[in-house]
Amino acid sequence: MSADPTERPEDAAWMRRALSLADGVMYTTSPNPRVGCVIVRDGQVLGEGATQPVGGPHAEIRALRDAQARGLPVQGATVYVTLEPCSHHGRTPPCVDALVAAAPARVVVAMGDPNPRVNGEGLARLRAAGIAVTAGVCLDEALALNVGFVSRMSRGTPWLWAKMAASLDGRSALPNGKSQWITGEAARADGHHWRARSCAVLTGIGTVLADDPRLDVRHVATTRPPRKIVLDTHLRMPAGARLLDGAETWIFTAREDAGRAAELAARNARVICLPGADGRVDLPGVMRWLGQHDINEVHAEAGAVLTGALLQAGCVDELLVYMAPMLLGEGAGMARLPSIEDLDGARRFQFVDVRGLGPDVRLRAQDPSRLAAARAAATPARRA
Amino acid sequence: MSADPTERPEDAAWMRRALSLADGVMYTTSPNPRVGCVIVRDGQVLGEGATQPVGGPHAEIRALRDAQARGLPVQGATVYVTLEPCSHHGRTPPCVDALVAAAPARVVVAMGDPNPRVNGEGLARLRAAGIAVTAGVCLDEALALNVGFVSRMSRGTPWLWAKMAASLDGRSALPNGKSQWITGEAARADGHHWRARSCAVLTGIGTVLADDPRLDVRHVATTRPPRKIVLDTHLRMPAGARLLDGAETWIFTAREDAGRAAELAARNARVICLPGADGRVDLPGVMRWLGQHDINEVHAEAGAVLTGALLQAGCVDELLVYMAPMLLGEGAGMARLPSIEDLDGARRFQFVDVRGLGPDVRLRAQDPSRLAAARAAATPARRA
Repeated sequence: MSADPTERPEDAAWMRRALSLADGVMYTTSPNPRVGCVIVRDGQVLGEGATQPVGGPHAEIRALRDAQARGLPVQGATVYVTLEPCSHHGRTPPCVDALVAAAPARVVVAMGDPNPRVNGEGLARLRAAGIAVTAGVCLDEALALNVGFVSRMSRGTPWLWAKMAASLDGRSALPNGKSQWITGEAARADGHHWRARSCAVLTGIGTVLADDPRLDVRHVATTRPPRKIVLDTHLRMPAGARLLDGAETWIFTAREDAGRAAELAARNARVICLPGADGRVDLPGVMRWLGQHDINEVHAEAGAVLTGALLQAGCVDELLVYMAPMLLGEGAGMARLPSIEDLDGARRFQFVDVRGLGPDVRLRAQDPSRLAAARAAATPARRA
Repeated sequence: MSADPTERPEDAAWMRRALSLADGVMYTTSPNPRVGCVIVRDGQVLGEGATQPVGGPHAEIRALRDAQARGLPVQGATVYVTLEPCSHHGRTPPCVDALVAAAPARVVVAMGDPNPRVNGEGLARLRAAGIAVTAGVCLDEALALNVGFVSRMSRGTPWLWAKMAASLDGRSALPNGKSQWITGEAARADGHHWRARSCAVLTGIGTVLADDPRLDVRHVATTRPPRKIVLDTHLRMPAGARLLDGAETWIFTAREDAGRAAELAARNARVICLPGADGRVDLPGVMRWLGQHDINEVHAEAGAVLTGALLQAGCVDELLVYMAPMLLGEGAGMARLPSIEDLDGARRFQFVDVRGLGPDVRLRAQDPSRLAAARAAATPARRA
């Protein structure tokens, strides 16, 4: 998308302030999007705010109330908001109504709301009320904050990143299975941030049986811990597994077993049977189910077998790889995939961020076509 | 090393200019070190220069002549030079004599010259002549330019980096051997810069027989192409190999075969028989031989077997890894190494630089103890 011709030189800087407010509620708004809003007149902030946890006010309302609390009228001001204001009655009244009532001269948004109940309608109603609208300012940064919300709204499935920790030569464990700890403290702490921002942490029964992980969030304060999900074809989940900590856990299986399901239900584990044609769990089916259950982002933290299966099933949108500066030579790979004859068959991603984390590096890579689709869905309507 | 208390605020900036001049002769000075020199008075450059190809003048002489050509006397000025000036008669007279004759007030150096014929003597003679000396300014940057020279002078063997190109999951080739091209144009062009700066490009007979590479330098203009070296235990080198292009090539073998050696000599290939106790080529012996033959830096570009053997023999100081954002699953690894039982047995490096190159990333990692040893050898004598 080319830049909106109505964009002004100061817009990007104010939008970045709004994005930073949205970033500040990273761990609390899901399944609602993370949104920030700043109201400005003559270079002065009148009010600002970010989306509150589900059921609480959206960013625009917070910012309007902030201005009101300061006794500063918003009429004629400019409102910067990272997502198109909602135009529908959800758990809260439409933000568009509140904005129209406050009568700013101009609203600048970063991305459109792909929610089919909004999807351009918010911007159209602002324009219809005589408010100038500029759209698409800092679109990519806004999308990065809410790519999971966009995915769920536009294609019905969450955005899934596969988290992996490996040596420089791509070994995720020694031949004897040892993998603690290939990467260091800083990488592990960063991994907890990604767990914390996700709506669900997904692993496989193999990892549960081998390591009995808690899969909880440490190192990050969160009031909304992600759902834990286990893929368990043969329903081997032990009722005493440590990850069954009282919060509802979802176990996807290919095997109907009412007795085992009841036993697990006693530990607050919900068993969902979704067999695929091959007798294993239907992975694309799981993704659709999760999309229907308000899951925006999935943090998959599994072994090479399940990671490979998710890749083969087309369920992986992004790789989150922590790499240690060591060579192991032999051992488990990062993802078990069928042998290919030609590089045309390689699973290709696109690096979007590479950075050092203590002694290690973190490499993020996204599926370029998935990102393009999300970007298209988030591109705001230029005219109603 | 703590900072030299005689360092002045402007020193680092002038030294960086001298380092940049040294960087500009990256491909032409070996086996001499890359050195830059800037002569300054009252914030004005009087003269500057960098080391010329072997037999030509060193950086200090170039800078002094530059000042002379401009008619600017150097007396009382400050000389910035990236390496301790030489104090011995080599192919050219000692730079220290020329500096003393020019009578600057002060000489600032980045690193000491680990050449046993210099090694503090250059700085001592400057001090003895009443010239103020500040040492260790931008030491690490200077070391990075000449780590190979420092290695050869201090431990008698070159600095070797193992160049690898792999997928994100550490596969250097498909199961059928295909590896062209996992990484893209920008990564390959960068690889030619590393070939060009090295004194020797080393590969294994397996790579020669499989790919028949030229191993020459493309994408970079150089008047001093690196020596080509093949490790060839059983002396299987074909006389028609493309890398035998007329320039003298060195072939290390474990097998005496006068007939084959004569046949290869006709292609200007010199066969050196260095068998180890295991009947294979004695790799540490090769490194010592190369050190004795003026090789500062070795660019090893080999398959997983030879790369693994070099690692096991302790011959690898640095990893130069080009990584493509793709997953291959199956295929050759980056280095064949024996299986280990514990992460304590991992071969550990330290990331020193990570950057994007087109769609790929380049990760450089060094052996921390090797780097520390080189740094100690390059740390200038603070007092005579």
